[in-house]
Order: sequence, then structure tokens, then C-alpha cells
Amino acid sequence: MTIDRREVGPHDVLIEIAYCGICHSDIHFARGEFGGIPTPLVPGHEIVGTVTQVGPEVTKHAVGDRVGVGCMADSCRECANCQQGEEQYCLNGHTLVFGSAGRDGRITQGGYSTHIVVTEDFVLQIPDGLPLDAAAPLLCAGITTHSPLRHWGAGPGKKVAVVGLGADQYYATGDPATFESLAGSFDIVLNTISAKIDVDVYLSLLALDGALINLGAPSEPLPVNVPSLFANRRSYAGSLFGGIRETQEMLNFCAEHGIGAEIELIPAEKINEAFDRVLASDVRYRFVVDASTLA
Amino acid sequence: MTIDRREVGPHDVLIEIAYCGICHSDIHFARGEFGGIPTPLVPGHEIVGTVTQVGPEVTKHAVGDRVGVGCMADSCRECANCQQGEEQYCLNGHTLVFGSAGRDGRITQGGYSTHIVVTEDFVLQIPDGLPLDAAAPLLCAGITTHSPLRHWGAGPGKKVAVVGLGADQYYATGDPATFESLAGSFDIVLNTISAKIDVDVYLSLLALDGALINLGAPSEPLPVNVPSLFANRRSYAGSLFGGIRETQEMLNFCAEHGIGAEIELIPAEKINEAFDRVLASDVRYRFVVDASTLA
Repeated sequence: MTIDRREVGPHDVLIEIAYCGICHSDIHFARGEFGGIPTPLVPGHEIVGTVTQVGPEVTKHAVGDRVGVGCMADSCRECANCQQGEEQYCLNGHTLVFGSAGRDGRITQGGYSTHIVVTEDFVLQIPDGLPLDAAAPLLCAGITTHSPLRHWGAGPGKKVAVVGLGADQYYATGDPATFESLAGSFDIVLNTISAKIDVDVYLSLLALDGALINLGAPSEPLPVNVPSLFANRRSYAGSLFGGIRETQEMLNFCAEHGIGAEIELIPAEKINEAFDRVLASDVRYRFVVDASTLA
Repeated sequence: MTIDRREVGPHDVLIEIAYCGICHSDIHFARGEFGGIPTPLVPGHEIVGTVTQVGPEVTKHAVGDRVGVGCMADSCRECANCQQGEEQYCLNGHTLVFGSAGRDGRITQGGYSTHIVVTEDFVLQIPDGLPLDAAAPLLCAGITTHSPLRHWGAGPGKKVAVVGLGADQYYATGDPATFESLAGSFDIVLNTISAKIDVDVYLSLLALDGALINLGAPSEPLPVNVPSLFANRRSYAGSLFGGIRETQEMLNFCAEHGIGAEIELIPAEKINEAFDRVLASDVRYRFVVDASTLA
């Protein structure tokens, strides 16, 4: 279908979309699992493309620039949290890139489309050397894992576990012996899964001052036994993607170190099938939609 | 009744107890609310008195010193946490001052008594100028609130709320409007009550990177809605009294600034009555037993 984008305002950037990642949140939204949604709804919040027009006041981007847009299309920019560069925690509520009321009152529409208009401050530069398609998932999945690792001090000497994906070592969380052998081992446990988990058993993995950080949102409350928090002075925390400055830093870091997402590129007509395959964990590791197939 | 203390070993200190605070944990233990307890059981873990004998290897204390003993009578002193001075998180399990198996296998007995023998490393010096009776509650209640304030960075510019007791300002948590007017206000919320609370509503009080810290242990798991943790990147944490070095620092700080607990001194025969009055919140703010009435 055809949707209207707003006119390019003084501080706006018009982007011709090249690729858009598919994130589990798109599926939650599209299937109404985050509550009622306005229709029509165009998902997609891992958007990369090329600038084709800029407003007269734009200074950060130019026609021809390779750029990206993530979860947020705007925020108040005036509250204490925005002033600290943590727009994802905007006290007046940030504007999501789709399904959210923008400053003009219109409902935003996301990246499963050919073009998008975004205010320049919420547009990221994709550095040379980072392929656009491999950059797309960095704009939500990437920053959502990068930000808490930075905030909770991952670095030399720290031990990090990621629930839902492993790296150097893999453990089966279905086996209770895993939790016994790893008790008190980790400084940071990132939980990327949005299903219900036994919080206490994951807390037991934490060493002194360790934190279990939820990145996904289960639909029901999770019971926590307070003595699990007493041992080793543990914390249970949440983290929401990342701020604009931090996202740009991550993109620069990825370009410098040759890091991109491992993706499977699909045409638009495979989106519904891809949604089912995401839910079946049948993708290594992210689907990216080729926006040229939408035209 | 009469209990035996162990012989004063090379590193031990014999203390003639002057006063012992009454803490809610004593009541939990004495009434079996922390599970089965060995009998006989002598509670009391806010102990102050005077050194009357020291073992031949003791270097930290001398006969006549004014000293105190808190929740812990020993720990392994070798694990990573003990080595950092966080004996309260001893990975091999610290020895509580009562109801806990000591290194010699005997069950420890607490401060509602006339004398106690404790290894010198777990004996605190009570600085001159800090009255012994007003010092007693500092050894559990005091350090349990002091330690998380230090750890979570209370200081200039930070806003702290204490649930269960106020200071400059008081708010009625029974009134839902309190939570609306204070939403996102605090950097640190210390929850001193051990009853079940609505965790989400207390999390809503936290500003960016704020922490809700439980000091009491509810007997049942508390449900947490993960989106409450996402907003403002909040943490829900636990904290357990404090380490020996930190406890000594707190006692020195209190002496320097003329801070002591506000207490009601009682004779031993009033202990049962005092237990009931603690549960009825009928004390401003701590009972302290005069050990001379035990003799």
C-alpha cells in the first residue's frame, strides 16, 4: 500500500531505504502483543539507506550520505535524561519510529517501506566499510546489547553471559547442572529472551555486585525471591536500546573492527514467512528485508 | 539459663557484654520464621561491652577496650569476597553470631547474655565519645542502612528515600497520590521493611539509573514487571549488613559526628514484651537490653 510521509521540514532528512531488519518487537507489534495498535501500521525499526534530500537547516547529514534510523524517531531533547544523551529514557516519552504519535500528532510509520523522513538528530551515520545490510540489525539488536555491556562495565577481567545466544562457550539452560557449575560466575548476565524465566536461578549465576539485565519484556510479572538479591549484593535490572550518541559510537566501533550482523537477506514477499521463522528460532541470526523489492 | 562459651583461643577476645540491641531478625529467628532453629538459642547480634581477656596472639584489642560485635562472628577470610573486605558475602558462608555452626562445629550463641568469645578480626572498636548503649543498634541496623548508601553512591546531589522510616520529609505510602507526585524522583530507595510490597510501584519512584534496594527479606517471592525496570534503566537489588572494615568506618564516622541510635533501654525481663512492641511498631526507635540485669 501507499503511505504518506511528512514534507521535509527545515531539520528533516529524507532517506531512500535500502534495507530494514526484522526484529522480534516488529512481530509483537504487528500481532498486537504489545496491546492495541493503530492501523495502518508499517513496522521496521532497523533502517538503513541513503539521504536523497535535506531540509535547509540540516547540518549533520548531506545528500548521498549512508545513514540509519533505529527505534526512536524523536524525543523531547529537553528533559534531564535527554540532556544526558539518554533519549531512550526521555521523561516526556520518546517517539518510536513506528506506531507512535509524532510531534505533529501523526502516527509514525516504520522501515518496511521505500522512504522515510526523520529529524536530523535521530539519524545515524553509517561509516564507510560497514555494509548497509549488515549494519541494519545493529540499530536495534546491536545497540540493545551494546548499551548495557557498556553501562554495567563489561571489559577486561569481567565475565559476561548472554541468555539466548552464546559466544566462546555455550551452556544448555535446560539442564539444572548448568546452574550448579556456573553458580556465582558472572559479573553480567544479559537476558535477551522475552519469555518468562526463573529469575532466581539466573540471579544465582552472579558474582559479587553482579547484575542480571533483562532486554526483553515478558508479558507477565516475574517472581523474585529477595534472598537471591542479598547473596553477592545482586541486582536485577532492565535496559532499553541506547541513546543516539552511544549508537553512533557503536556504529563507529563496528566499522573500525569490521563487525556486522550475520544476516539472511529476503525480499518483501517473504516477511510473513520470516516472522514465523523468527518465532521458530530458524534464522542465523537476523532477517533483513531488501527494500528494493517493495517498489 | 547457663550456656558455655569456648575457651579463649590464641586469637580470641572475651567480652563482658554491657548492652545488646533487639532487632526484628532476632524475633524472626526466635519464633522460627527463618526455618528450623537449633535449641537452646540465644539471640542478639548488636553486642557492645568491654574486653576482659585476650588470647596470646591478639593484636587488635586489649583488656579494657570498648568493643562491639555485629551479625557475623567469623567468615572464611580466604574467598574473593572476604579478601575484598565483603565478609558478609563470604562465598563459603559466614558464621552468624548466633544459631550458626562455628569453625569448631559448635552452634554460636548471641548477645542476650553476659559474656561472649569472638575471634579478634570480627570485633569492632567502639570509639570514645560514642555511648555504648547508643552504639549497639549501629552494629546491625546502622551498618545495614549505611552500607548500601555508600555502595550505591549516596552523596551531594543524590535523592534518597527510606521506606519504613523518613527523615526531612515523610510521605504516606498508603496513599496512591504519593507515588504519582514522587514518580521518577529518587536515585536510591532503601526498603527497610520485610513485609511484601508492590515492587513496581516503588520502582516507579526511581530516576535514571536509580536502585530500589531491599534490606528486609519477605517470606514470599515478589512479582516484578520487567517494563518497570526498563523505564529509567532501574535496578532492583538486595544488600546484607556490611563488612568488618566498613562497619568500623561507620562507627568512627558516627563518633566523629555525634551520631548514635535513639534507644529505649530495657531490663532482660522485658524482652518478650519488647518483641511484641517491635512488631506493633511501638518503639522510637530501638530497644536495647541492659545486660547487667541478666546476671
